[in-house]
Amino acid sequence: MASQLPRKDQFDLPEGVIYLDGNSLGPLPKGAVDRAATVLRAEWGQDLIKAWNTAGWMALPKQVGDRIGALIGAPEGSVATGDTLSIKVYQALAAALKMRPDRRVILSDQGNFPTDLYMAQGLIDTIDKGYTLKTPAPEDVMGAITEDVAVVMLTQVDYRSGRMHDMAAITRKAHDMGAVMIWDLAHSAGAVPVDLTGCNAEFAVGCSYKYLNGGPGAPAFIYVRPDLATTVQPALAGWLGHDAPFAMELSYRPAMSTERMRVGTPPIVQLSLLDHALDVWDGVDMADLRAASITLSERFIAEVEARCPQLTLASPRDPAQRGSQVSFAFEHGYAAMQACIDHGVIGDFRAPNIMRFGFTPLYLDEADVIAAAKVIETVIANDLWRDPKYQTMSKVT
Amino acid sequence: MASQLPRKDQFDLPEGVIYLDGNSLGPLPKGAVDRAATVLRAEWGQDLIKAWNTAGWMALPKQVGDRIGALIGAPEGSVATGDTLSIKVYQALAAALKMRPDRRVILSDQGNFPTDLYMAQGLIDTIDKGYTLKTPAPEDVMGAITEDVAVVMLTQVDYRSGRMHDMAAITRKAHDMGAVMIWDLAHSAGAVPVDLTGCNAEFAVGCSYKYLNGGPGAPAFIYVRPDLATTVQPALAGWLGHDAPFAMELSYRPAMSTERMRVGTPPIVQLSLLDHALDVWDGVDMADLRAASITLSERFIAEVEARCPQLTLASPRDPAQRGSQVSFAFEHGYAAMQACIDHGVIGDFRAPNIMRFGFTPLYLDEADVIAAAKVIETVIANDLWRDPKYQTMSKVT
Repeated sequence: MASQLPRKDQFDLPEGVIYLDGNSLGPLPKGAVDRAATVLRAEWGQDLIKAWNTAGWMALPKQVGDRIGALIGAPEGSVATGDTLSIKVYQALAAALKMRPDRRVILSDQGNFPTDLYMAQGLIDTIDKGYTLKTPAPEDVMGAITEDVAVVMLTQVDYRSGRMHDMAAITRKAHDMGAVMIWDLAHSAGAVPVDLTGCNAEFAVGCSYKYLNGGPGAPAFIYVRPDLATTVQPALAGWLGHDAPFAMELSYRPAMSTERMRVGTPPIVQLSLLDHALDVWDGVDMADLRAASITLSERFIAEVEARCPQLTLASPRDPAQRGSQVSFAFEHGYAAMQACIDHGVIGDFRAPNIMRFGFTPLYLDEADVIAAAKVIETVIANDLWRDPKYQTMSKVT
Repeated sequence: MASQLPRKDQFDLPEGVIYLDGNSLGPLPKGAVDRAATVLRAEWGQDLIKAWNTAGWMALPKQVGDRIGALIGAPEGSVATGDTLSIKVYQALAAALKMRPDRRVILSDQGNFPTDLYMAQGLIDTIDKGYTLKTPAPEDVMGAITEDVAVVMLTQVDYRSGRMHDMAAITRKAHDMGAVMIWDLAHSAGAVPVDLTGCNAEFAVGCSYKYLNGGPGAPAFIYVRPDLATTVQPALAGWLGHDAPFAMELSYRPAMSTERMRVGTPPIVQLSLLDHALDVWDGVDMADLRAASITLSERFIAEVEARCPQLTLASPRDPAQRGSQVSFAFEHGYAAMQACIDHGVIGDFRAPNIMRFGFTPLYLDEADVIAAAKVIETVIANDLWRDPKYQTMSKVT
């Protein structure tokens, strides 16, 4: 049975807005305010410290991890949640380097989100044993996987172009060369079908505030391949990754499960909101979602190219090589995006010249996409972006 | 003008409960549900990605850091917020070790909260260059600070006994021996007067869900002494600690401020709740709070000792050497605490035999303390703790 898409009635979307930035921050799921009120008033307020047990807070990180796992082809118990994606990148990378003690190269690419590269640089400086971070162009990654590479660490979907790596093929090559594979699924989880078990990567990480709609600053996740769960070495050896956190032992003993990748006290309010947001996914088949995403994206490209010759497609034309976003290059992209937002179409801008639009079939339909293209046409054809009020650079994550 | 204490009307405390566990999880401040609803419905829901600017989310981590700083004697701009306390310990320790490259000893003590020791062990294993973690008894720390110590890392107030280290004296000794000083203020911030500037320590860390009432899993904080803010090396080099996060550069360049200790995308919902919780502190003088805490604690000790000879004081008798908690040792402490909780007095238990009670003058008065002692007497004098229902060990953080 096909998933029923879109599910606009499950979101509180503002009037008069077409939201093409769910790849940056997903919208508010209906009922989230009620869930927060319950966590605050009934659980925290009434049960106080007891709520860790009575309200199921202790179990929440794993429960949410399992729900995310179901969307990315990961078995029960293989996904731990908490912290931020940057922290999860560090954990995966530190653990992976320990698995290849005789190698000194970390291979990523220039399409990786900068924080992944920064965290790698921070880890390299911390260890200070001559590690090198290599960042070829995305299309040169396959050829750069050689027998000196300890770890291949890539984001599957390029945050700027939407270009998508072939997880299975790259993982196979990494393993052929004896390297450990880490996938960052920031723009994949809830966006495209992911089969972690099938691709056999050792680690995957991701965030939950984009396509999973967990809310601003929602917790991240880390997947550890089940056969490694009891042997990976946690660099961030926090008490909630301890085998017996409440025994208050002086020495660290990691949990005999993926839970060893937990660190400190979990952010219960944000985890609860994420848990609530995952309800929207009940009954959604990722293949159906992907088909809908491609339909929306293809239609958008066709409409924008027909209406705005000034814009140049900056994403792969082949939908099979694209995630769930479409980017156009335009010299005045920043100002043009501000003008679009002002006219009711919210996408975002990525330096130096990328106008980025995310396609989220949970709450978008073809009429939205056509309407958005018309607004972009209005902005571009009439040079609305030249208005001085659209020129000032402000921070948008 | 004396602070007006207690301020019970600013909290939503459950009926019929005396809450002596605010040192583990502070209670719900009034208005928190409304603040959460505003963040979710008006900010996230209506403004979506734009809320990073329109709702002030980008500024929130520093704003909250400055408000915490005001409670611990730290100047504006010296406190960064986010992540968990475990992560902040790791950041401080990794940065401190880089400042003493020729030394290999980390000195802590057996009274430190285990996660601090675990994080140190994880860092030692990650660097793998022969570092040693020494953990003498708390009373032996001063003598153990020798010229081979790179970093002294201590929690000021012992989570079990409430025993309080002399921050100024230990920091002076550490500096005399050429070591870097890190203070964990988990049980100090909002509990006792702290003068970070005066004590001159390089780093301090802490959490906000205890005496600061930020809610379950509220974000942590890290203080960096202002003269070091632009030179400390961040091990966890996340994008929001970058000097220009949105320039999306491939190389990490730390912010020229304490903000370099930020890592990933901040947990906006929990940060907002913490920001709200800090309103309660407006106009509170820490000296007044400390005086009230001592009055409550002294009265509690007198009442319990008079009523329950079976319990042995496990905290220093001198209030000047105690934080804002009082612990009693009792062989059947776990069951006894469960019975107390069942009878309306919530404290907590710490292995192996510690019944722990926190004193929080924001929402406790002397009548509460006397009433609590009477309940404890009822439980102990009548052996109520022997009821089988109080024997089962469950997890309480």
